[in-house]
Amino acid sequence: MKVINVGLLGCGTVGTGVAKLLIENQALLRSRVGAELRLKNIADIDTRRDRGLDLAPGVMVPDALPVVDDPEIDIIIEMIGGEGIARELILKAIQNGKQVVTANKALLAIHGNALFAAAAAAGVDLAFEASVGGCMPIIKTLRESLVANRIHAMTGILNGTCNYILTKISEDGSPFQEALAEAQKNGFAEADPTLDVEGFDTAHKLALLTALAFGMQINYGDIYIEGISKITPQDIGFAADFGYRVKLLAIGKDRGNAVEARVHPTMIPEDNILSSVSGSLNAITVSADAVGDILLSGRGAGMLPTASAVLSDVVDIARNLVNGATGRVPALSYQRDQIRKVPLLPIEELTTHYYFRFSALDRPGVLSKISGILGNHEISLKSVHQKGRKTDGAVPIVMLTHRAREADVKQALAEIAFLDVVSDRPVVIRIEDDNDPD
Amino acid sequence: MKVINVGLLGCGTVGTGVAKLLIENQALLRSRVGAELRLKNIADIDTRRDRGLDLAPGVMVPDALPVVDDPEIDIIIEMIGGEGIARELILKAIQNGKQVVTANKALLAIHGNALFAAAAAAGVDLAFEASVGGCMPIIKTLRESLVANRIHAMTGILNGTCNYILTKISEDGSPFQEALAEAQKNGFAEADPTLDVEGFDTAHKLALLTALAFGMQINYGDIYIEGISKITPQDIGFAADFGYRVKLLAIGKDRGNAVEARVHPTMIPEDNILSSVSGSLNAITVSADAVGDILLSGRGAGMLPTASAVLSDVVDIARNLVNGATGRVPALSYQRDQIRKVPLLPIEELTTHYYFRFSALDRPGVLSKISGILGNHEISLKSVHQKGRKTDGAVPIVMLTHRAREADVKQALAEIAFLDVVSDRPVVIRIEDDNDPD
Repeated sequence: MKVINVGLLGCGTVGTGVAKLLIENQALLRSRVGAELRLKNIADIDTRRDRGLDLAPGVMVPDALPVVDDPEIDIIIEMIGGEGIARELILKAIQNGKQVVTANKALLAIHGNALFAAAAAAGVDLAFEASVGGCMPIIKTLRESLVANRIHAMTGILNGTCNYILTKISEDGSPFQEALAEAQKNGFAEADPTLDVEGFDTAHKLALLTALAFGMQINYGDIYIEGISKITPQDIGFAADFGYRVKLLAIGKDRGNAVEARVHPTMIPEDNILSSVSGSLNAITVSADAVGDILLSGRGAGMLPTASAVLSDVVDIARNLVNGATGRVPALSYQRDQIRKVPLLPIEELTTHYYFRFSALDRPGVLSKISGILGNHEISLKSVHQKGRKTDGAVPIVMLTHRAREADVKQALAEIAFLDVVSDRPVVIRIEDDNDPD
Repeated sequence: MKVINVGLLGCGTVGTGVAKLLIENQALLRSRVGAELRLKNIADIDTRRDRGLDLAPGVMVPDALPVVDDPEIDIIIEMIGGEGIARELILKAIQNGKQVVTANKALLAIHGNALFAAAAAAGVDLAFEASVGGCMPIIKTLRESLVANRIHAMTGILNGTCNYILTKISEDGSPFQEALAEAQKNGFAEADPTLDVEGFDTAHKLALLTALAFGMQINYGDIYIEGISKITPQDIGFAADFGYRVKLLAIGKDRGNAVEARVHPTMIPEDNILSSVSGSLNAITVSADAVGDILLSGRGAGMLPTASAVLSDVVDIARNLVNGATGRVPALSYQRDQIRKVPLLPIEELTTHYYFRFSALDRPGVLSKISGILGNHEISLKSVHQKGRKTDGAVPIVMLTHRAREADVKQALAEIAFLDVVSDRPVVIRIEDDNDPD
């Protein structure tokens, strides 16, 4: 039986999960792959920590470079993370003719075009199923299952931390900071949560998905990104009054000569199946010409779910090695010479429905002033709601719009903010409601 | 660029969809596969019907055999259906060394073990993604994405006709026959709906999924099958009172030395995500050791969704042919010598929760008689509900049980049917409620 040697770089949470599956499910893997996957080395600075792994002496080593340079190793699994040393080691592995598996979405979102070019030039595979959506097989689905489809759009909940926090705010009415603290306590958020709650992690993933779905270069820099740190229980409550839930969505749409790629808190109808995806779960719907809509859902993070996705890549590559079929599926779904350079649509050109919340004095004429300015900017209202009454002080005024242009919305809100009857900055949340064409 | 010749056998609805995608998305397929997929021939008895396909002269032929024998053709797509001629043609194609793609679940459920053995002996692939769940990539997910997982259980809505009918009964309160007639009118049910509504089609699919998930031989004959034709609006209404929905589920569970494989109407909690899968949609949840639960959902039938799945197989095979990697992934997920022969658990040995509805006279002592018999058979009740009152005639009595053994339930109900205060046969619907361990 052919032996395929694997070198694992980085043995943190997910790295440990990968090692665990390679060791504990070794017989299972052998019975499915028809080859032996041997974890030859694990490189991690901390060689002493007990990770609950039953390792032979010499498997755990402190330096990654000798592993990447080991001529016996066929597949390198990069689980270090970050854009520095991880990038150098991946490039070195590629130059050494090794197959590479990574879950490093930040690295691929920013340096992916160069890394995939290097892998193609060296004739090796650089696989990354675990970088998006944890155990949901979204990359394989886009690249293989939907291969005969023109993909129109994708809508995803791709960050478990944000979905956990939004679910908490929605269920308990707790403010953002409290929900975040609870997420941190329960291991669903990092000590520094910026990457997650400000939407950057979701955008890294969206950058990869838009490339795969629409046959374009990875373009992280132009994605519109807005996080969830300003979402309040009040707005989530008002959303529920209108039959909406608030989710941090990654939205990608093929607009022909441009692609829409945006990450922001979004109201969606509660009968949209994404509304029932709660807690730390991830989910994505893909709309395509032949299949209509399909949905995938599963754990988007965590030791073993992510490790499962890493192993699916390792096995794919092992099966290629057994059959001498490296490069069988192009990394970005299209043959390299077919990848388009397509601009992202500037957010100002977006047309969608909006939810506004103003804090305004409860005086006659206030509504007409606000709606007058909106009307001047071609923003037509579907409904207006004053929430409560107060003789002095501000009350919330909530408005839902018909489809409007983002540039018009920005200008109108800037004017409204100048009104002396309006205090605070207006709250704006975009709505995605496919049931409502206007 | 390498040209791969495809022969399509059968040009009904799905066959037409396959031809459509091969023709209309030809450039897309080329840009992804890096090879040319050429539809060389379509064999169908009816060569004259206008299918809206733009075919060169000579592509459409009346006889399948010359297509299967054509040495230029690399891949045969069997879209004839049924177990007769389809089987012979697939075997002939395999003997001729051709790769084969089919969506014929009935054929594979019954003759799959022999057909996969023949394909393995001839060193060709026999692919069948489209046979289960239409466009949901459940076969690829089980076979490739979850390759490092021990799969514990699967729960699927695998028949769009049944799900459409149950949704109609639930939403409109219409009786089964009316809902079926409406499904037929809207193209969601065949003129002869037996295969769908009696659960056989779902069981065909479950036979394939259990083989893939649990590494065992295909065993359709021993699956427990019960259809939806006896489901009433009344029972669906009572289910809703308890927070349950009724779905026709395919359930597969690994029980170690045996496998549970059963198809029957099932009550599931309304917060189970499968409860929100309505109309003709399909969905499946898979529980496995590393990933926890994952869910796939999408259209389970129809021309283009099914054709999309067929094409994903065709492209997988084309990529194998380009790389000389036939047999890269074993058909039934495990290497052939690793496939277990495992018995299915007889339904009598099932332990689950039950819903009973009795028609009983509204007289003192009736409840105690019924519950006495249940108690004698170790069936303990969670709740009892008499629905309405009547001085003469029968009223419905509804009971929910704790976990009980199916054999005990059968015996108890047989005794209860003999009581003179009970009219009609009792209604029994099994409940799957993971929230409730007892």
